[in-house]
Amino acid sequence: MSKELPGYRGEALEFLQRAGVNVEDLVRVTKDGKTYEGILIPRSEYGDDKHIVIKLRTGYNMGIHLSPRTKIQKLGVGKKLIFTKPSQPKTKLGLPKVAIVSTGGTIASRVDYRTGGVTPALSANDLYAVVPELSDIAVIQTEILFSIFSEDMTPKHWTAIAKAIAVHIKQGVAGVIVAHGTDTMGYTAAALSFALQDLPVPVVLVGAQRSSDRPSSDAALNLIGAVTAAANAPFAEVVLAMHKTPSDETVLLHRGTKVRKCHTSRRDAFRPVNAQPIAEVKDQKVVLLTEDYRRRDPSRKLTVKPDFKEKVALLKFHPGFDPKLVEWLLDSGYKGIILEGTGLGHVSNQCFSVLKRAQDLGIFVGMTSQCLWGRVNLNVYYTGRDLLARGVVPLGDMLPETALVKLMWALGQTKDYKKLKEIMVTNIAHEISPRTVSLGDV
Amino acid sequence: MSKELPGYRGEALEFLQRAGVNVEDLVRVTKDGKTYEGILIPRSEYGDDKHIVIKLRTGYNMGIHLSPRTKIQKLGVGKKLIFTKPSQPKTKLGLPKVAIVSTGGTIASRVDYRTGGVTPALSANDLYAVVPELSDIAVIQTEILFSIFSEDMTPKHWTAIAKAIAVHIKQGVAGVIVAHGTDTMGYTAAALSFALQDLPVPVVLVGAQRSSDRPSSDAALNLIGAVTAAANAPFAEVVLAMHKTPSDETVLLHRGTKVRKCHTSRRDAFRPVNAQPIAEVKDQKVVLLTEDYRRRDPSRKLTVKPDFKEKVALLKFHPGFDPKLVEWLLDSGYKGIILEGTGLGHVSNQCFSVLKRAQDLGIFVGMTSQCLWGRVNLNVYYTGRDLLARGVVPLGDMLPETALVKLMWALGQTKDYKKLKEIMVTNIAHEISPRTVSLGDV
Repeated sequence: MSKELPGYRGEALEFLQRAGVNVEDLVRVTKDGKTYEGILIPRSEYGDDKHIVIKLRTGYNMGIHLSPRTKIQKLGVGKKLIFTKPSQPKTKLGLPKVAIVSTGGTIASRVDYRTGGVTPALSANDLYAVVPELSDIAVIQTEILFSIFSEDMTPKHWTAIAKAIAVHIKQGVAGVIVAHGTDTMGYTAAALSFALQDLPVPVVLVGAQRSSDRPSSDAALNLIGAVTAAANAPFAEVVLAMHKTPSDETVLLHRGTKVRKCHTSRRDAFRPVNAQPIAEVKDQKVVLLTEDYRRRDPSRKLTVKPDFKEKVALLKFHPGFDPKLVEWLLDSGYKGIILEGTGLGHVSNQCFSVLKRAQDLGIFVGMTSQCLWGRVNLNVYYTGRDLLARGVVPLGDMLPETALVKLMWALGQTKDYKKLKEIMVTNIAHEISPRTVSLGDV
Repeated sequence: MSKELPGYRGEALEFLQRAGVNVEDLVRVTKDGKTYEGILIPRSEYGDDKHIVIKLRTGYNMGIHLSPRTKIQKLGVGKKLIFTKPSQPKTKLGLPKVAIVSTGGTIASRVDYRTGGVTPALSANDLYAVVPELSDIAVIQTEILFSIFSEDMTPKHWTAIAKAIAVHIKQGVAGVIVAHGTDTMGYTAAALSFALQDLPVPVVLVGAQRSSDRPSSDAALNLIGAVTAAANAPFAEVVLAMHKTPSDETVLLHRGTKVRKCHTSRRDAFRPVNAQPIAEVKDQKVVLLTEDYRRRDPSRKLTVKPDFKEKVALLKFHPGFDPKLVEWLLDSGYKGIILEGTGLGHVSNQCFSVLKRAQDLGIFVGMTSQCLWGRVNLNVYYTGRDLLARGVVPLGDMLPETALVKLMWALGQTKDYKKLKEIMVTNIAHEISPRTVSLGDV
């Protein structure tokens, strides 16, 4: 590897060496009639050899795919880049107002120059500056609520996000966007679906799978999709906006309780489970995929129920699973347990006695399936009935992650076991689909 | 609901009432030129109104879909059914020998007449009697090893299954089939993939999603696919045979380490993850889908490594996850932990200190992703590097369930941490795919 061009290899290395350009040089790159100026920065060790990366004056990194017509010109050696302040969004008359609440994540991150790792850094405002299309769709107000990795998100953060959204909605925006790391974005989407009731306008979570120094970053399209939905969608629900396919064309709007991250790195990592997306955004237009939704109505009064209780566990059953793990939860004052059983919702008969103990203690135990797709049913096999007799509550086709979030939320609403159970088995935010009687699915 | 016809409603109820037939009557049903004789039995409360169910003389239940041409005739009232003994498989000259080791599950179960629940009951031999096609494919020898629900399967059962298979292979069969409940069949398939090395012939796990009293039972096609593969497949690997689609046409043969149950009830519930199936069976022919496989070679000497250690946990991380759960595992003498992290393999920074403690204790901690699809990578974000520094071992694109099984198995092979880690990160049975450099997947 070249000392002057760390991280570059193959085609990209040859291209830069031919031009006599080194890392930290100020360069001008021309490609397909467009010109980019910035500082050439090192590539991460995982990059391919088809791209170079420059840091633009906006502070944003940009990956440029090399084609035979790509040209590079050195403007200066080892220059300091003079950053331009992100320009304020131009306010066009008559455009809807949209609030972006930024919590962190790849959509608001950049590669750390020295370590090569990705750190959360850019504000939603900066993103606006690099996606100029947004100014044609909405007038945007931004708030940096946190700047954390989404794996560090806790139920307390959900409460804060719900409250921040409520403030923006009270100010009369057409919709609110939450910029979020993708890792736990599905959990937060479910949390907001329960915490924000009677929404007058849409709430849209959005993230990115590839950081902005990747030529293949999905941030821009997802953000355009999210802003379009927040500004113009006819529904008032909590949705999650991410790529429909690996290509940069369509953004799906998933219901917050029926979506999960199903791939570590693909742009179309988020998949609907036991549901269809509510709509999609293509060419800055919202296309509805269902007629069953709560209509946007700015006069509707938002109800905020932002409390979540912790001490709730999600346990995935497996061969060799130790019932003592459940004993420990009961001994440690846990208030509720969601089991990811096998198949239709099973755990081994070795677990029966500890489940009986949970029942006697009045601890809620809900059953979901590690299959993820489909619906639990404790009436097919007699072992399922054994679980019902021990107070285990089947949770229909609810995702295990959604069930966990809902239980944390339900415990924030009531301490009464009967009411708790009633909340858990009642469909509140599309988390439980009605039983479909289709022979193919029975 | 009719007292004489419990469980029947709508069309089916009217059909039976018109014919004056009650439950427990001996009946003859004619449909599409075929005739079935048996006792009319009650339907479960979840049945539709388009089928009736009779218990045949074989002891097997059969659902019959009502069409305008279906006719029913009462032969007797409240008669006892005289069961016919399943006939022994006819041995045709020149056919390969296949062993079926039965462990239980829906493929070997029937509806309990009194409770309406499904109980494991029929032996593999009985199944042979109701799938006559099998006698054209192979000469079958059967062994009922256990008769348990698959959620009660433990690592000790895996050991017993591996040893039973080895006995049949030493007797020179062309292949071995394991009839298994679908709930944990993926775990057992992974276990056998590690325990049975240098296989001379194929080992095929097979199950059914619908019990035999369902008109839509998938047992017959799956069994035909499994026997065809065991008898004739050109490979010698551990595979799992289940429906490719909801329709009764093709059986996929999945690699045992790369497949999971992804739907609670569909016939095509088993899906390959981060892999393609090795082959499929259609019209009793094995069609290879890859050229990369271990060839069948009856002269190869099987190596059996059947030991699995318990005290290994699989923990799914989530917002609000309590690091004390990991503390408890360490305090309780656990030997290894597989984490299902978020995204590329993350857990919250609150977990860092307990992971450091695991490292200091020499307890193996492996990282997989709850996304299931894709590959963990602890080098993209600095928090990933924080995990590497605390001894967390990224396990590539291994399924969490497969990683759990592999760790139980690896601990059965060595007590040395360095060797353990070496085993865990080395591809043994296709559980780790080579890194594919595809831009769409980077």
